Amino acid sequence: MNTLDALISNLSKLPGIGRKSATRMAYYLLNSDLAYTEILSEQIRFLKDRIKHCSICGNYTEDDPCEVCEDPKRDHSLICVVEQPQEITPILGTHEFSGVFHVLQGVLSPLDGIGPEDLNIASLLERARNGNIQEIILATNPTVEGDTTALYLVKQLQGTGIRISRLASGIPVGGDLEYADRLTLARSLQARQQILL
Amino acid sequence: MNTLDALISNLSKLPGIGRKSATRMAYYLLNSDLAYTEILSEQIRFLKDRIKHCSICGNYTEDDPCEVCEDPKRDHSLICVVEQPQEITPILGTHEFSGVFHVLQGVLSPLDGIGPEDLNIASLLERARNGNIQEIILATNPTVEGDTTALYLVKQLQGTGIRISRLASGIPVGGDLEYADRLTLARSLQARQQILL
Repeated sequence: MNTLDALISNLSKLPGIGRKSATRMAYYLLNSDLAYTEILSEQIRFLKDRIKHCSICGNYTEDDPCEVCEDPKRDHSLICVVEQPQEITPILGTHEFSGVFHVLQGVLSPLDGIGPEDLNIASLLERARNGNIQEIILATNPTVEGDTTALYLVKQLQGTGIRISRLASGIPVGGDLEYADRLTLARSLQARQQILL
Repeated sequence: MNTLDALISNLSKLPGIGRKSATRMAYYLLNSDLAYTEILSEQIRFLKDRIKHCSICGNYTEDDPCEVCEDPKRDHSLICVVEQPQEITPILGTHEFSGVFHVLQGVLSPLDGIGPEDLNIASLLERARNGNIQEIILATNPTVEGDTTALYLVKQLQGTGIRISRLASGIPVGGDLEYADRLTLARSLQARQQILL
């Protein structure tokens, strides 16, 4: 295989990138400045060396502890539990959450052989036991695995006196009832909120 | 800017890649094998060193002359003129073309200050004069710039006795007359072919 085909083949392993996109990207790289390809190459090369998991929350970070865990202005008694580090940025973007995070680095999935010991759960239970925690928001995805993981965590956290909550599930803003699936509609009914008059 | 944001920013410069795709790609790289990121990084780093332009046709190649120009089984008296190297693979893929190529590396575009001397045109005229060329197919895109470039080449090649042709323009296979634009429809009428009974 020649150099260009080898690059195209590797680029098309990236998520959402098919053979045509990979080809366009490879030709773009071929036509671009040497400075750009050198920087991009170096960034990819050293990415995994420079970025580690935060020893407190499990988020990706260059400095340990991470920015969020180090921030004195955040509410450290409120923990939002997410599946993956990439879910932290959108939650911060809402400006509706002032607490800190805990990243499970996956979900329980017995069929794939992923049990509690494979996830970042032990350190969450330690934080719950030792820290001054008021509330834990379980923000795993509303999928079978995410719900199972949330249920498992609820059982583990029982008796700690910590308030446990779950993100609301329902019709997305701008969505259409007509096209909502039955489960989503059912959950939005179950979680309906009274309008105070 | 931190390492991850810097990588995302550079990945989103790639064609067709927005900020969300770049973020997904960066996290994928972070989670993937070190072997994969090292190879990809090396491929991007040395791409521009390893791949040069063919001294005959201007195509990208590792060995000069390129594979197509070196192939004794191809018809070297038939040249297909394209704008960019990436247009060669789809033409070869049709199995309808047995000749060789000439890559202009762009199109005439007076508004962007691109004139004949900025394109790989002089070497095409030299091939036309010196080689035993029977036909030149002008396969520039059916756009204003592509048509202008084709017209310019026709004028330059006048008097060489070489047969000059242009790719047919019309309704794409599987396309719908109802949705074809007026110009495409007009060209497909002008170039209509008689059905022999």
